[in-house]
Amino acid sequence: MTTPPLAISLADVESAAERLAGVAVRTPLLENDALNRHARGRVLVKFEGAQHTGSFKFRGAYNRISRLTADERRGGVVAYSSGNHAQGVAAAATRVGVGAVIVMPSDAPAIKIANTRALGGEVVLYDRHREFREEIGGRLARERGATLVKPYDEPLVIAGQGTAGLEIHAQAAERGVEIDQAVVCCGGGGLVAGVATALRGRSPRIAVYAAEPAGFDDTARSLAGGTRVANDPAARSICDALMAPTPGELTFPINRALLAGGLAVTDDEVRAAMRFAFRELKLVVEPGGAVALASVLAGRLETADRTTAVVISGANVDPAQYAAILAAE
Amino acid sequence: MTTPPLAISLADVESAAERLAGVAVRTPLLENDALNRHARGRVLVKFEGAQHTGSFKFRGAYNRISRLTADERRGGVVAYSSGNHAQGVAAAATRVGVGAVIVMPSDAPAIKIANTRALGGEVVLYDRHREFREEIGGRLARERGATLVKPYDEPLVIAGQGTAGLEIHAQAAERGVEIDQAVVCCGGGGLVAGVATALRGRSPRIAVYAAEPAGFDDTARSLAGGTRVANDPAARSICDALMAPTPGELTFPINRALLAGGLAVTDDEVRAAMRFAFRELKLVVEPGGAVALASVLAGRLETADRTTAVVISGANVDPAQYAAILAAE
Repeated sequence: MTTPPLAISLADVESAAERLAGVAVRTPLLENDALNRHARGRVLVKFEGAQHTGSFKFRGAYNRISRLTADERRGGVVAYSSGNHAQGVAAAATRVGVGAVIVMPSDAPAIKIANTRALGGEVVLYDRHREFREEIGGRLARERGATLVKPYDEPLVIAGQGTAGLEIHAQAAERGVEIDQAVVCCGGGGLVAGVATALRGRSPRIAVYAAEPAGFDDTARSLAGGTRVANDPAARSICDALMAPTPGELTFPINRALLAGGLAVTDDEVRAAMRFAFRELKLVVEPGGAVALASVLAGRLETADRTTAVVISGANVDPAQYAAILAAE
Repeated sequence: MTTPPLAISLADVESAAERLAGVAVRTPLLENDALNRHARGRVLVKFEGAQHTGSFKFRGAYNRISRLTADERRGGVVAYSSGNHAQGVAAAATRVGVGAVIVMPSDAPAIKIANTRALGGEVVLYDRHREFREEIGGRLARERGATLVKPYDEPLVIAGQGTAGLEIHAQAAERGVEIDQAVVCCGGGGLVAGVATALRGRSPRIAVYAAEPAGFDDTARSLAGGTRVANDPAARSICDALMAPTPGELTFPINRALLAGGLAVTDDEVRAAMRFAFRELKLVVEPGGAVALASVLAGRLETADRTTAVVISGANVDPAQYAAILAAE
């Protein structure tokens, strides 16, 4: 039996980086004394809250949409998303000059729905408990002759997200630092697959971990068992951005080949990480964006005497929810 | 009548930058689509919340304290401050290995008092309405043989703060951008004096503005009149970091020589800027740290078709106050 090739390679991420040069934000890689003390090592924080639309999702969306043919551009794009991919697709489509219809759950954070509209996206809401977004997205694509931009099971999207990893590697090198390990949040697994492709493509010795909310640790369990398993449909989490039901078809083989393992954190650990980011890093972080940081703060992996890169993947959080989490300290 | 020389020159800021290299954080210079759209120009945001202790104050404190003689180090340092200079001095003293006593008003934000202690500072509280911090600081210095580290009327402190300006200039050049103007918050005027020395030393065509809270716009009024005037002692503002009663003796001549003018913003405009930073920039900003951003958002200066650098100077805000300001949206 031969193993099929992985969906993307380092060259695909490098090609995405060329396409995103001067378009995406080269987000900062930050270091903080309090975090280093806590980790008893060096921690470098990649802050994707500073990316267009407040999350890494613009990277993959733009890499995909900017490569549409002239014919495809006329039909526009369709995407389904709980919010961050929605905003990334809307912003990328507007920048490329094509229309975008976004299928969003009606209970997505209000700020994400409002932002998607403000970025030029046409929003179609659906009931997450009674309808299937893939079905609605597929139907809209057929009706309008639009191209579906999947949130993670799409090679150009995975490669685009991976550009964050190339930046981490280059920014660490600029300050003379070698990264030993990286922690990246994981929903469908596109970001961690892309970042692992980039980081391990550059330095095979870097260990990359997927971080997930407890109850949505399908990738951790799938990595441990070697085969894709699903989350309990009854699971709940405040990490609205990381609720994919199973690892992706394209992302899981990459993650199985490249990752060192998966880490899971509780909602309370996520809230504590959001408060730490407020108090020490002075960064706004949404629940799903704080999962990798939470893994480090909760001691889910050994950080002493090592250099660990942590991706804060997004920062689109409703002010009321954010205020409530700050108040719970 | 000859004009006395200014307290610092570009060479002093360059010397401070050498001393701070590898010690202070080279804080990020960020750009954001929503802010650019609002300004109808380019805005580059220097985020000093990412500096050690959450404000620019570490720069000046370290530049002063690291130059103490062996004799002076034995006596330690004394400082008085509403909070950010306190933390900067405590952190710099700890790093240099000298003791630090900090005189703070008893009504300073709890987070600033707690952080000053956590950073190794011995805190002495006083009643802002009944006692004079200069008197208490002077007495403690005499009693202990300690060196007083003034918050702004001290050449090495002004030069240290100016390193933020050198970084702005270099970081803009790295991305091929020329800055037309800069807006910097102003309490006693040390930061804006240092940044103006740096920026105009590098590019004399850059116009630099001081931004102040309404009621504490002593520098704006002093610049307009050509001579130092005081604020009404009855004035109040949420900008606890910017409550100096008059422009500094050393900072004002620099600012009179180098600044294009002063801008004042209301507390409500400051709150709106803090919410904008939360919503769009994903950055935590304290009231005093948001004054320059508020000036741009409130249209206090022409930003269309120009490149404007804005310093967000600090981010040490109590979670309860921050939550209340977010909720007021």
